[in-house]
Amino acid sequence: MDDRVRAHAETLVDWSARVDPGDNVVVRVAEGAHDLAVAVAAVLGDREANLLATYGSDEVSRAYLRAHDGEFSPNDAERALYEAADVYLSLGGGRNTAATADVPGDVRNASDRARSDAREARMATDWVSTVHPTRSLAQAAGMSYEAYRDFVYDAVLRDWEELATEMGQLKDILDAGSEVRIVAEETGTDLTLDIDGRTAVNSAASVAYDSHNLPSGEVFTAPGTVEGEIGFDVPITVRGRRLRDARLVFEDGAVVDHAAAEGEAALGELLNTDDGAQHAGELGVGMNRGITRPTDTVLFDEKMAGTVHLALGRAYDACLPDGETGNDSAIHVDLIARTGEGSRLTVDDETIQRDGVFRWENGFERP
Amino acid sequence: MDDRVRAHAETLVDWSARVDPGDNVVVRVAEGAHDLAVAVAAVLGDREANLLATYGSDEVSRAYLRAHDGEFSPNDAERALYEAADVYLSLGGGRNTAATADVPGDVRNASDRARSDAREARMATDWVSTVHPTRSLAQAAGMSYEAYRDFVYDAVLRDWEELATEMGQLKDILDAGSEVRIVAEETGTDLTLDIDGRTAVNSAASVAYDSHNLPSGEVFTAPGTVEGEIGFDVPITVRGRRLRDARLVFEDGAVVDHAAAEGEAALGELLNTDDGAQHAGELGVGMNRGITRPTDTVLFDEKMAGTVHLALGRAYDACLPDGETGNDSAIHVDLIARTGEGSRLTVDDETIQRDGVFRWENGFERP
Repeated sequence: MDDRVRAHAETLVDWSARVDPGDNVVVRVAEGAHDLAVAVAAVLGDREANLLATYGSDEVSRAYLRAHDGEFSPNDAERALYEAADVYLSLGGGRNTAATADVPGDVRNASDRARSDAREARMATDWVSTVHPTRSLAQAAGMSYEAYRDFVYDAVLRDWEELATEMGQLKDILDAGSEVRIVAEETGTDLTLDIDGRTAVNSAASVAYDSHNLPSGEVFTAPGTVEGEIGFDVPITVRGRRLRDARLVFEDGAVVDHAAAEGEAALGELLNTDDGAQHAGELGVGMNRGITRPTDTVLFDEKMAGTVHLALGRAYDACLPDGETGNDSAIHVDLIARTGEGSRLTVDDETIQRDGVFRWENGFERP
Repeated sequence: MDDRVRAHAETLVDWSARVDPGDNVVVRVAEGAHDLAVAVAAVLGDREANLLATYGSDEVSRAYLRAHDGEFSPNDAERALYEAADVYLSLGGGRNTAATADVPGDVRNASDRARSDAREARMATDWVSTVHPTRSLAQAAGMSYEAYRDFVYDAVLRDWEELATEMGQLKDILDAGSEVRIVAEETGTDLTLDIDGRTAVNSAASVAYDSHNLPSGEVFTAPGTVEGEIGFDVPITVRGRRLRDARLVFEDGAVVDHAAAEGEAALGELLNTDDGAQHAGELGVGMNRGITRPTDTVLFDEKMAGTVHLALGRAYDACLPDGETGNDSAIHVDLIARTGEGSRLTVDDETIQRDGVFRWENGFERP
């Protein structure tokens, strides 16, 4: 076995999920994630945790949902499983990213609604999502299998403590600040976001940091009013539809104009989901220098250093003052913009990043 | 997909498990059972049952157990899952029958003991075990993949109602009887089993018959005191280790001597699991004439007409008088003996089977 698979498993169990002896750990294994599951099992055994593996097969889900009439009853067994679990580790990595493309949307939505209790119970555990590199994901990224594996492990096997310390600097600045401005010449971006009173999350790929993704490597917060224009030059597939060079114009917090070189209709549909879909629920700043290119998987793309992302829709409670509810929506869709040559990220008029380089990094040029 | 996979899934869900709408169904998917899992999911969706799939990977189990120090705590998540389940379908069919051959027996036994509550909860469901034909199982059977698939579907896709009627004859005899004697010249077998007050199960591959295997085709009961000697001349692989020509000597119900031409150490480990492992929890009589040869898979071999089997370990409650607990153990391991030429099976001195032929079959020779 590739030593990196073992290292991935150790990072997941020890750094990300902080598994303790005796913890009841549920591990979801996607169709292509067998090798990572074996490595995770070995680490869990060594840590004296309990293990139950579920089979997260897209083809099984597709067969089930397509045969069902859509009148679902609550899945009590699934709920009971997660209620009794301390930790949930999702090992993604399928064999076909389009495996569920022909499942009717209304049946899937009905199934999701019927399983909402189970989902809540799952998200009350110390849950972490990661992916095992598969040929299917390599294909989606437009990369060879060998190159994609290198890409994934470069993103996952980082010095997370060091990155957490670095990201802590940005969190402190955002927590103390009241206004973020993003300027990028390349895309004609000039966006101002009110963040007064909001709390940023230092997403360092560990439940100890309120972070549930491996890899992670972003600092995010929930903006208030947003003003200006932004171009998203990292293409992404949303609900099976390609979105390229999307643009949004915000006035008084709401999207008042939108466009895209590809997928403009899909973008319009997203914005029309509900009122909250026309507002930004999240501003994230990618800080993972191990992620050097987009791969059409949001888990990686939104963490890429030299990018920021804005999510249309739901805000995370962790970013909001106690008792305050942020932007509410049925969706949370991340759109990603490069902040490279000719870009500037400022907080209260202080430059934090210029030309894609943070002010604490080598190569940062003071004006 | 082979139509027989779909027919297998329908037989499993409808005839065997009698799944109702709204049932919470847990489906265990072995490494090689993906195609059957997809077919079962489609049938469960059509029947409006709920589905949660677990991943029954031998390689995951091996990695976990080998890394563990053997001090297990109860797996509450697994127990909670099965307690909330109505139906449990185990889809066997791995990729390597020796995948767990190098797991230390004491660690496995400790794990089994720690998971006994979960196992009890699982066995309180309407559970059914079946296997999907894999190349690994074909290899173990010494058969080509094509021929092995034919073998499996011939054994599974039977007229179960008709077989249930035939097996009912033996059940009636065993229910009325008080002592079974098995004599086989070939292996020097002469074993006497007390079955007074016990109830035989007409195992017709359906929970409606207290039968939990697909295929099935056996009549079994839980013996009380066992006396004598028996040789098991159908070789089987137990926990990845070959067991050939095992012999057991019983005195006053307990095994007092054991031997094997191959796998004697493995047999010794089994017997040392706990006290109950040294007693017989089951006597079964194979009656499936569709199974014409041993294939090194107990699910099939023990149903073969012209064999009997004895299980070391746990007894099934269905065979016991109300309120009585039978032999208890963390294990239930079936050992199989041919009853061919030169053999005799009697109940209270009445010959039921001679030279492998039941008395209601053509060719039965009365003495």
